[in-house]
Amino acid sequence: MSKKRIAILGAGPSGLAQLRAFEAARQAGNTDLPEIICYEKQSDIGGMWNYTWRTGLDKNGEPVHGSMYRYLWSNGPKECLEFADYSFDEHFGCAIPSYPPRAVLKDYIMGRIDKEAIKKYIRFECPVRWVDYNQETEMFSVTVMNHKTEQQETELFDYVVVATGHFSTPNMPYFEGVEAFPGRVLHAHDFRDALEFADKDILIVGSSYSGEDIASQCYKYGAKSITISYRSKPLGFEWPEGLQEWPLLTHFEDNVGHFIDGSSKAFDAIIMCTGYLFHFPFLPDELRLQTHNCLYPDNLYKGIFFQTNPKLIYLGMQDQYYTFNMFDVQAWYARDVILGDKVLPDAEQRLSDMQLWLQRHEKLTDCNQSIDFQGAYIRDLLQSIDYPDFAVEKQGELFKQWLLDKQEDIMRFREKTYTSTITNTTATELPKPWLDIKDDSLESFMALDFVEVKD
Amino acid sequence: MSKKRIAILGAGPSGLAQLRAFEAARQAGNTDLPEIICYEKQSDIGGMWNYTWRTGLDKNGEPVHGSMYRYLWSNGPKECLEFADYSFDEHFGCAIPSYPPRAVLKDYIMGRIDKEAIKKYIRFECPVRWVDYNQETEMFSVTVMNHKTEQQETELFDYVVVATGHFSTPNMPYFEGVEAFPGRVLHAHDFRDALEFADKDILIVGSSYSGEDIASQCYKYGAKSITISYRSKPLGFEWPEGLQEWPLLTHFEDNVGHFIDGSSKAFDAIIMCTGYLFHFPFLPDELRLQTHNCLYPDNLYKGIFFQTNPKLIYLGMQDQYYTFNMFDVQAWYARDVILGDKVLPDAEQRLSDMQLWLQRHEKLTDCNQSIDFQGAYIRDLLQSIDYPDFAVEKQGELFKQWLLDKQEDIMRFREKTYTSTITNTTATELPKPWLDIKDDSLESFMALDFVEVKD
Repeated sequence: MSKKRIAILGAGPSGLAQLRAFEAARQAGNTDLPEIICYEKQSDIGGMWNYTWRTGLDKNGEPVHGSMYRYLWSNGPKECLEFADYSFDEHFGCAIPSYPPRAVLKDYIMGRIDKEAIKKYIRFECPVRWVDYNQETEMFSVTVMNHKTEQQETELFDYVVVATGHFSTPNMPYFEGVEAFPGRVLHAHDFRDALEFADKDILIVGSSYSGEDIASQCYKYGAKSITISYRSKPLGFEWPEGLQEWPLLTHFEDNVGHFIDGSSKAFDAIIMCTGYLFHFPFLPDELRLQTHNCLYPDNLYKGIFFQTNPKLIYLGMQDQYYTFNMFDVQAWYARDVILGDKVLPDAEQRLSDMQLWLQRHEKLTDCNQSIDFQGAYIRDLLQSIDYPDFAVEKQGELFKQWLLDKQEDIMRFREKTYTSTITNTTATELPKPWLDIKDDSLESFMALDFVEVKD
Repeated sequence: MSKKRIAILGAGPSGLAQLRAFEAARQAGNTDLPEIICYEKQSDIGGMWNYTWRTGLDKNGEPVHGSMYRYLWSNGPKECLEFADYSFDEHFGCAIPSYPPRAVLKDYIMGRIDKEAIKKYIRFECPVRWVDYNQETEMFSVTVMNHKTEQQETELFDYVVVATGHFSTPNMPYFEGVEAFPGRVLHAHDFRDALEFADKDILIVGSSYSGEDIASQCYKYGAKSITISYRSKPLGFEWPEGLQEWPLLTHFEDNVGHFIDGSSKAFDAIIMCTGYLFHFPFLPDELRLQTHNCLYPDNLYKGIFFQTNPKLIYLGMQDQYYTFNMFDVQAWYARDVILGDKVLPDAEQRLSDMQLWLQRHEKLTDCNQSIDFQGAYIRDLLQSIDYPDFAVEKQGELFKQWLLDKQEDIMRFREKTYTSTITNTTATELPKPWLDIKDDSLESFMALDFVEVKD
């Protein structure tokens, strides 16, 4: 029998987790690994964690993947995303604060990757054009555009792992009059640098993570005023002066935004923080996951195997409290199935299992329950794989503390410290308020005099 | 024999010309027309002439087609793009100036279209996902995503007409340091409203039509300063104070751009007017036109029939002096071939013909020669179709005059008037300088007191 062939679509956190899962098996002595090709649209690994100055389309005319902006700091404690097999202590050699900036976090995520070992699997600048499944041969055909050679490549695979993310394709609603707004109108996906909005009156539409964080960024870097418009309910934090939450935006007249409560205000720019679309332009209907952003997308057994064709695997398609370590657990589980170490139950059993989770999912009423739900999901996978066990539930408690810390002071929660569930190390404190640390480079962050927390 | 089936990709000026060509045959009594489906990514006809406030990706997550901006006026005389079978006089009922704003020109272009007759062929919000050609059945298979139904559709066709344009996918070069530029960096494709750049120091990279026009726009709407950086040679106009041309940009340090002559300047925003890529993500290599922007792309017999598979037809892929009437002539010619009224010569003869034109193309050394070349190309097609004959060469002379008028005064050339080659009507004059007419809506333009030109 010839070797199995696996296509991994995307070399971001999820795709890299899948590569590492196989690499871990190789290092553990498995000599019968499948042949793997990982196709990546960008010219480097890291997915969303690559900052790019580009917006809209990239140098090859493909939609820009990245939604990262300058000065982004982690919006959750690093202790909640720590890898079980590679701690922050191991990477940095010292304790660091709980909320590092993007470059620091990226350094950590990339630090555990043996780039040489992994890069040989990856074909960069290769966006996927089209995937087909042949019922007779039971093989996928994957066609990509190789922008380096300017030629397309088509290869056959036994399994396809979709690891292309779901925070890249903006959901951009229309509001009456926006077409005549005399200033910049952008989606959070295209937000790059808060300095562009200094001294301006900014309207932020949407009150989820992007809205909350971009509002804080704009405040930190000198916007004149920031108005967040919410649809159902306000974020409800005690915002500093100059930052306010207003109800639903209804329409624009010239540069004036009108709100459902009759209020209105003139703005210089509009930033739509209105979420993302699941977008898989390379997948035919019968292979395409159709869902909204939630903790348990339908039709994915164990959150990863596509129900009607479980040789099609989706990683990281959940809404996320847990991130990197959840992707790891998913990738390890998928690897075991691909290697034949685990046998998937039949369609009916898979359906029953999904339905149990979906029922549980429907009953969630608050954030704490949602955190527990995702923790339980991870625990379910973790218990049957050889990924190092880790304190999923304890990390869940940290998430709950994080929510309280944000409620206490949305502008200062990043100054809080947490204790690692992996190494038991307590994070150091920032030497000054987050609002006052404007240079977010790796070098300048690591040169700060972190303060040890006294018991 | 069953009816032939034609797919037209795109309902912009070229795709609409193709639909009209068939509609003209129907009105002339042809009862044996093929079955036509026109797939359009946008939700309306008009292609590039639809203004959209969106940038980057559209509401369906597809790349935005439009590169139009507010306050765009025609940058060439309307007398050079007048349809032979539908004059400006017929549309407006009176003489109007030679350089109308976008909305006025769009009104004219759309005016001759029997929207009801044509819309029945068009499926809106249907970006093409993938096209295949089956050598055995000699049929194309076209798969589109229908965003209205959220389902894909695949149909078979005898001919495919690619009318998707080539001014939609930005060519965006990298300059060292641009990733740290603390302000907006955008491509002309994403430029929407010059008012965003009022009171700012703007850097425009690139000195072709986009650079020239966006620089003028920014000047008109109050930019503090505009610096155009050219690669090979300056546009060379006598620019007004505050607008200057500098040589090649080399790199950025923070907000400062450095130029090859050692000069430097701080900027608030960078607009890359660096052209477009030919981008057909839905076409396999063997069907994909690979060219740069020029007056005679290789591998297109008569500028339209793909050499290795002439049932694949490309419209409007040339760089353009002539526009709408050239698309018409191409579409009429393509129609005659599809209907069997014209038989294409064999591959060798087609190659010889292309080579003659390519040799002639290579020898072009200036704009006037280029205008004549494109005129001769149109004349070559026009002489063998039943499209109304029109004064191609006389329009060419108008283009040459236009170039002189721009040299004379780049800020006032839009106040010049030309005489229609179709109706002999002389355009009226604008009642005040173009720089002083800031509202560009159809209503306010048509309400201006146009001035009749005295002999």
